[in-house]
Amino acid sequence: MARPGARVADSKKINSELFTLTYGALVSQLLKDYENAEDVNRQLDRMGYNIGVRIIEDFLARTSTARCTDMRDTAEKIQSAFKMYLGVNPTVTSWSPASDEFSLLFDQNPMTEFVELPDSCLSLKYCNLFCGIIRGACEMVQLEVTSWFVQDSLKGDPTTELRVKFVKKLEDAMPAGED
Amino acid sequence: MARPGARVADSKKINSELFTLTYGALVSQLLKDYENAEDVNRQLDRMGYNIGVRIIEDFLARTSTARCTDMRDTAEKIQSAFKMYLGVNPTVTSWSPASDEFSLLFDQNPMTEFVELPDSCLSLKYCNLFCGIIRGACEMVQLEVTSWFVQDSLKGDPTTELRVKFVKKLEDAMPAGED
Repeated sequence: MARPGARVADSKKINSELFTLTYGALVSQLLKDYENAEDVNRQLDRMGYNIGVRIIEDFLARTSTARCTDMRDTAEKIQSAFKMYLGVNPTVTSWSPASDEFSLLFDQNPMTEFVELPDSCLSLKYCNLFCGIIRGACEMVQLEVTSWFVQDSLKGDPTTELRVKFVKKLEDAMPAGED
Repeated sequence: MARPGARVADSKKINSELFTLTYGALVSQLLKDYENAEDVNRQLDRMGYNIGVRIIEDFLARTSTARCTDMRDTAEKIQSAFKMYLGVNPTVTSWSPASDEFSLLFDQNPMTEFVELPDSCLSLKYCNLFCGIIRGACEMVQLEVTSWFVQDSLKGDPTTELRVKFVKKLEDAMPAGED
């Protein structure tokens, strides 16, 4: 799987604005393509999944991280991935009593910096790509999770809250893939 | 829990891999949507234009740069923008005798790092977004340019070469916009 040490030269630090605007172009394109916002959400999640199963390799190489021991460990690593790839530092909070479910709170989110949702898009989950990325990346380290937005400041909520829930541990095998 | 305050000085410095993979998802989506690669190239250029007219503001704010005096000055600024937003340092070269046209050579290009073009996509200009961005950004500082790829290492060329040509100075007015 991961090729530790491969391709992690640090010449690739960039500012996030170009990414933010390009992501906006992607979401706009999907809104043109699909009938309704639900389909766009699904497509963003699917795209995110495909990104997640690939970016995990880069993350492991960059952080030389060991396998997660529990969900608290997983939460910390997801948090650091957001810092690494998006320059944000979400707060990990709202643990379930069984410690199998937590929230990430985003006080700032560069992805939505230039974004205003028109009324016709109120069911759009603009950043749903993240949910797919988390799902895909975790699956590659034998962890099945679900992930969804419960609050979204783009829709007037006081914050943006992403929920992650442990489903099960997977057998040590390559996933079948998804497209 | 989060450790607030840790490394938030430049909160928007990110690694480019997530951007690279997201851009790949965008190009894939366009390839699904449009009949042929020429249309995808046009759409990427158009999206780039819309990004360019917005990102120039961020660039000017970040660099406190003065208006370009000539194309050599412009070339230098485009070069530094690639560094800033993409973490690459293209070489400026192949000036026309009249100094109104130059090339940017990309020895490395993070945007194409995970990319292989299938045979059906040989006329795709994978990074055509860049051409649109340059055109859009220059237009906002009253400079009309054209920009196109002359070589592409994705297609087996020895390097990736982007050509930029001065067309004319524009009147000091807001452009009409394009969508």
